[in-house]
Amino acid sequence: MAFGWIDEQADARRRAGLLRTLRPRPADSPLLDLASNDYLGLARHPEVTEGAADAARRWGGGATGSRLVTGTTELHGELERELADFCGFEAALVFSSGYAANLAAVTALAPHGSLVVSDAGNHASLIDGCRLARGATQVVAHADPEAVRKALGTGSGPAVVVSDTVFSVDGDAAPLGELADVCREFGAGLLVDDAHGLGVLGDGGRGAPYAVGLAGAPDIVATVTLSKSLGSQGGAVLGPARVIDHLVNAARTFIFDTGLAPAATGAALAALRLLRREPERAARAREVATRLHTRLTASGLEAVRPDAAVISVRAPSPEQAVRWAADCRAAGLAVGCFRPPSVPDGISRLRLTARADLTDGQLDRAVRVIGETRP
Amino acid sequence: MAFGWIDEQADARRRAGLLRTLRPRPADSPLLDLASNDYLGLARHPEVTEGAADAARRWGGGATGSRLVTGTTELHGELERELADFCGFEAALVFSSGYAANLAAVTALAPHGSLVVSDAGNHASLIDGCRLARGATQVVAHADPEAVRKALGTGSGPAVVVSDTVFSVDGDAAPLGELADVCREFGAGLLVDDAHGLGVLGDGGRGAPYAVGLAGAPDIVATVTLSKSLGSQGGAVLGPARVIDHLVNAARTFIFDTGLAPAATGAALAALRLLRREPERAARAREVATRLHTRLTASGLEAVRPDAAVISVRAPSPEQAVRWAADCRAAGLAVGCFRPPSVPDGISRLRLTARADLTDGQLDRAVRVIGETRP
Repeated sequence: MAFGWIDEQADARRRAGLLRTLRPRPADSPLLDLASNDYLGLARHPEVTEGAADAARRWGGGATGSRLVTGTTELHGELERELADFCGFEAALVFSSGYAANLAAVTALAPHGSLVVSDAGNHASLIDGCRLARGATQVVAHADPEAVRKALGTGSGPAVVVSDTVFSVDGDAAPLGELADVCREFGAGLLVDDAHGLGVLGDGGRGAPYAVGLAGAPDIVATVTLSKSLGSQGGAVLGPARVIDHLVNAARTFIFDTGLAPAATGAALAALRLLRREPERAARAREVATRLHTRLTASGLEAVRPDAAVISVRAPSPEQAVRWAADCRAAGLAVGCFRPPSVPDGISRLRLTARADLTDGQLDRAVRVIGETRP
Repeated sequence: MAFGWIDEQADARRRAGLLRTLRPRPADSPLLDLASNDYLGLARHPEVTEGAADAARRWGGGATGSRLVTGTTELHGELERELADFCGFEAALVFSSGYAANLAAVTALAPHGSLVVSDAGNHASLIDGCRLARGATQVVAHADPEAVRKALGTGSGPAVVVSDTVFSVDGDAAPLGELADVCREFGAGLLVDDAHGLGVLGDGGRGAPYAVGLAGAPDIVATVTLSKSLGSQGGAVLGPARVIDHLVNAARTFIFDTGLAPAATGAALAALRLLRREPERAARAREVATRLHTRLTASGLEAVRPDAAVISVRAPSPEQAVRWAADCRAAGLAVGCFRPPSVPDGISRLRLTARADLTDGQLDRAVRVIGETRP
């Protein structure tokens, strides 16, 4: 019987307490949100939603084709120019998702005969990019430039080192400066996923590469997402113009995908302009994260010190993490719950995000609820 | 020097006449469009663009997180229910793109120890799905049920056969009924990508599986895109509820991606409701395709008989295909130009799409321009 094996897998997941189901939310949720990646609180900002609405009206509901056929609008070009300029890169290319941008960047920069050195804590989309790439991948210890150096020493052809700038699960930052130094010793490229850095790190939220002076360098490529700090959907690759031109010609998730919808493009553009005008939002997100971490730690919880706006709190087991998150929800607080297979180290945790628009009162309430419901 | 090899690849592409550049279009292009995948002419329909605008206002610019965290809204649920109902399947799951839906479906349905049998003409996203899947892939001759039978005979574990319903390049249809028969002989599942069938084939555009009586069967899974006939962005997997539940738990491009933006969800929902109300749009798209093919053939051009709304016209070489498309554009007509590496057989062609809202006068004009500019 076709697909019969699915039931066995479902039973195994159920027994292990790892079965996931969807929980649709209403438009106006009464929950205090510390679970979304809307770091700057822009997803519901009227300028952003009107940016989406105006773009849909003016450009249509969809892009109608591949970016190489009918799917590139002047609106995409506008977003690409402003995004590259804001983050300090020469050029940018917009994709339908951050996942697609990562698949594109890794596969296009790791041709046959090349070496890809990938951090063990990298996001699923980077890992899938490595698996799709024609180059050979070496996975190295998390945030370990010395391990990267050793791996690069084994290669002879072109090489690229791949890392998140801020790791999604624990919210810790990669040692970008050291990684770049090691790459330059070997003439290797450095590809970083700044999904959790854009809008939070760097002057006015210009991102992690900008913060450490790597933006715009000829050997640095960054990917970003439009669906976190910019409150929209989509992703982008930022880098030297020749790398971007190469992606247009070589990246399958660019060539064979429909272009990003006008509404998402317009929303991201509106959010980017808002962030330029209100750069203090980035600093506020970092400040909220630091306060949240301080208060959680003060109340005896095991929380990782945040390098950006993600705070991870350890839970004793997957089942207790699920119950903890459910108890928070029952008390009016939405928190993320990460457990296998979404965590590289197998450790379950609550995952909190520090939005720039959280008030001190809301922070107090969040910390109180998390403390009172702890397993 | 990092990325130095890129320049050599760019030079080689330039010499072979295969270099691609983006050509951004304005909001109101004066060109007659026979290049987009907007088969029903809905991308600019006011109900669709207002569907996008309303959803952005009500739900925000983005979904704010993974579908498993904060990214599932009641709007997603609504679209999933109506889409499954319309196409005749038990359940549906919406993704940020058709590419992501295909990666999800193939990888989740081809676990370690399984066999994937994949048509040689399949879309890039299905091919990448096969490459990411843990099962072993056998690529078989295009649209050849006997080749599928032979391949299935070599497997012992779970098996899934993967095929486009309508192939993107030539617009020809897969022998779905025969494929399903062969799959059932072996207890294999059948996974079909109906990107170019939804909205065009089947009663009122219910798609290719519905047209041949396979929709809703326990061993049939279909993927669709929201970015073609529905004029929006995104993709979906349709199938038995247990398969959909399995995807929620196992598909990396579902778990680790931000949910589809509200505007795209709202636009697709509006388009779907419009199609239900105006089912004649689907038949009109097929009629336009047939007329276009008849007239092209009558004027001596080598065009493949369309099974849906895609018509392929062969060109003598990549360079001549590019020049032909450019000459059409200069004469006010937008046509697609497919050439290596976007064509599995290496043959360059013009690719025309038959929109339901093209008038007979526009068809006459299109055929005249294509004939007059032929190389």
